Amino acid sequence: VTRPIVFLTDYGMQDEFVGVCHAVMARIAPEAHVLDLTHAVPRQDVGRGALILSRAMPYLPDDAVVVAVVDPGVGSERRAIAVRTRAGVILVGPDNGLLSPSWEVLGGAAEAREILSDDVVLAPVSQTFHGRDVFAPAAAHLADGLAFEALGPALDPAELAIHESPSAMVTPGAIGARVMGVDGFGNVQLNVEAEHLAAAGIAGVVKVGDHQLTFVQIFADLPEQGIGAIVDSQGFIALVVNKGSAAQALSLRDGDTVILERADGEGGQGPGDPPPRHLQPVD
Amino acid sequence: VTRPIVFLTDYGMQDEFVGVCHAVMARIAPEAHVLDLTHAVPRQDVGRGALILSRAMPYLPDDAVVVAVVDPGVGSERRAIAVRTRAGVILVGPDNGLLSPSWEVLGGAAEAREILSDDVVLAPVSQTFHGRDVFAPAAAHLADGLAFEALGPALDPAELAIHESPSAMVTPGAIGARVMGVDGFGNVQLNVEAEHLAAAGIAGVVKVGDHQLTFVQIFADLPEQGIGAIVDSQGFIALVVNKGSAAQALSLRDGDTVILERADGEGGQGPGDPPPRHLQPVD
Amino acid sequence: VTRPIVFLTDYGMQDEFVGVCHAVMARIAPEAHVLDLTHAVPRQDVGRGALILSRAMPYLPDDAVVVAVVDPGVGSERRAIAVRTRAGVILVGPDNGLLSPSWEVLGGAAEAREILSDDVVLAPVSQTFHGRDVFAPAAAHLADGLAFEALGPALDPAELAIHESPSAMVTPGAIGARVMGVDGFGNVQLNVEAEHLAAAGIAGVVKVGDHQLTFVQIFADLPEQGIGAIVDSQGFIALVVNKGSAAQALSLRDGDTVILERADGEGGQGPGDPPPRHLQPVD
Repeated sequence: VTRPIVFLTDYGMQDEFVGVCHAVMARIAPEAHVLDLTHAVPRQDVGRGALILSRAMPYLPDDAVVVAVVDPGVGSERRAIAVRTRAGVILVGPDNGLLSPSWEVLGGAAEAREILSDDVVLAPVSQTFHGRDVFAPAAAHLADGLAFEALGPALDPAELAIHESPSAMVTPGAIGARVMGVDGFGNVQLNVEAEHLAAAGIAGVVKVGDHQLTFVQIFADLPEQGIGAIVDSQGFIALVVNKGSAAQALSLRDGDTVILERADGEGGQGPGDPPPRHLQPVD
Repeated sequence: VTRPIVFLTDYGMQDEFVGVCHAVMARIAPEAHVLDLTHAVPRQDVGRGALILSRAMPYLPDDAVVVAVVDPGVGSERRAIAVRTRAGVILVGPDNGLLSPSWEVLGGAAEAREILSDDVVLAPVSQTFHGRDVFAPAAAHLADGLAFEALGPALDPAELAIHESPSAMVTPGAIGARVMGVDGFGNVQLNVEAEHLAAAGIAGVVKVGDHQLTFVQIFADLPEQGIGAIVDSQGFIALVVNKGSAAQALSLRDGDTVILERADGEGGQGPGDPPPRHLQPVD
Repeated sequence: VTRPIVFLTDYGMQDEFVGVCHAVMARIAPEAHVLDLTHAVPRQDVGRGALILSRAMPYLPDDAVVVAVVDPGVGSERRAIAVRTRAGVILVGPDNGLLSPSWEVLGGAAEAREILSDDVVLAPVSQTFHGRDVFAPAAAHLADGLAFEALGPALDPAELAIHESPSAMVTPGAIGARVMGVDGFGNVQLNVEAEHLAAAGIAGVVKVGDHQLTFVQIFADLPEQGIGAIVDSQGFIALVVNKGSAAQALSLRDGDTVILERADGEGGQGPGDPPPRHLQPVD
């Protein structure tokens, strides 16, 4: 049985790069369904790619072969790897941390191989396009039933590169957060979960700079152009504007630091108090 | 036999939203072909989405399951619905009028269900991403053979939300029209059909503001950068520029009102006459 | 057995044009896998489309049916054609040169047909959307097993339109080159191959205007924001910037002329010498 392939890159859709990888996969595994997760990862942003990929894991077919390419070190000494997760999904991509949050979501890395077999990679391998020459072929061969160990030499999963995403810093009355991404609607995704709010004693309303944001269940609970906060579809806090862009309203971009404070009168903190001194921006 | 799925949203391709919906569908119906009609509907523009969708209907496979999501009311009381059309195609989406012009093209709504079954929707259902949690799963289950009535309680098709697209207003010598869309080439699509022109006594040449536009069969009948009018591939009148953008040349955008007038000397109206007083912009 | 379809256009993804073509193909050949090579060919740029298409040929499945539409002459007298290549791949598209570099890559055109059969094209054929009405149906019927000769009357392959891409002009110490494209990363692709450099006596370093560019194997061999030259994944010379845009750094765009000169002290040419008089920009 052919396994489905899930494909993510930072190649964009402006060029034929993604399409050529599809062609390579279709040559090797003509029956495989190839599903584009996204190709709009910000260029060379391994952390953002790792986050998007790992958040999608719960929705993938159990037998998926994932091929992900955000690869600033293409052509350098960084290895091309495949990782079999304990949940069964196989991850293919560069050994630069891109895949690590995903195998953590999937129960950990059961085994890993370096992709080196001449029966797998295209010859000659270019220095600049390993998506076409290494990763797509490896994913397609795996989807078509190639034994995992046929990819190349075994690697110790414990020695693979890891991407650590920044954690929110929680203190009484305030959270130092990071913008993890801004989606096409202008919603600002933070690295903050509901439990962080509880630990900080923030509920109902949150202060961001001069803005008081109410927590709402749905966009429509806000007035038009009103700013609020919401638990997004992944369980993370997002800052949103009803029929507008929170990123624009709050002048926030990917990677920015944001301080969430308990709103005036909501807890013990007096009006106009500065944020606690011991709170440092996460970085 | 697995039915093909046709997918339209306003999600854009900048994020992984479309890809995650594909993943959800692949989990449920691994054999289904999923075809992206477009994901570039202007955000939250239900009318535009309804128009694009309904115009595509004649080209779809007869056994298609269509899933369409342009859904400003996500998370509110608006219902998630599936509609079986008399032609056989099933439509899945929000009950906000998005689907109604499509079932009209397909012979009307034979029956409808609200999508509520716990065997269909993902748990927990998010407040903000029903494409992933409600609509994609419903479409995939239907594609995979789920009985229509298993989706949830029956709805009276007569009580579903309807989208009424604005009609052209035809008078002798002039038509009050609406820009229904501007495509990527800058062609301006109007809600005007050939019969409207005939009824208004417009033929051969049409006046739009200060411009005299000749009706041509093909772009190449115009000089380069020349403005003209054409019957588009859907049977509607479009304003076009050969190797250029009519939207730019005429400063027109989606939703704008346009007065088409019989050109000077072509009919009874004298040069320089103002448009008839009784002609009001459609709105 | 259903053949895979490879689809390239200049339609962009902003509209539903590509999706409607997919729908048409799914009606005719429900089992066919349709693979999007790219839809971001610059609008009406037949030469660029021809180049992208021909460079992808080596990566396609051997039994592919390619449908390519970059068609400024749609609706005019230009013919709709299908070409069976000696390698087996079938090419479908307008007879405007778009397909010719591809059949050259694939061993030449074995036979050709004009697409005219009423059993193939949709009725009525629009004047503006032959992708939907002529090319997609023809590709889908071929993928589904239609005999090649059933498309319409035979054409003499020798009489089909040819696209000639501009050649680099090589002289001792300098090459007159053309920018063949700028990819989404800002890499500048030239119509120059390694053998041209050897013939011009350029090695190691190349002068472009005031810049001295070192040839590197991989991006990471350059300092950040450093400009260099590289042999790209297709065997052509590209000008690149590590983690930046060479197009921006050198103010170059698609179609521009570029003079590559032997760097000072590398060969016989003295410092400050003007480029050889007999070198003319290719055009």
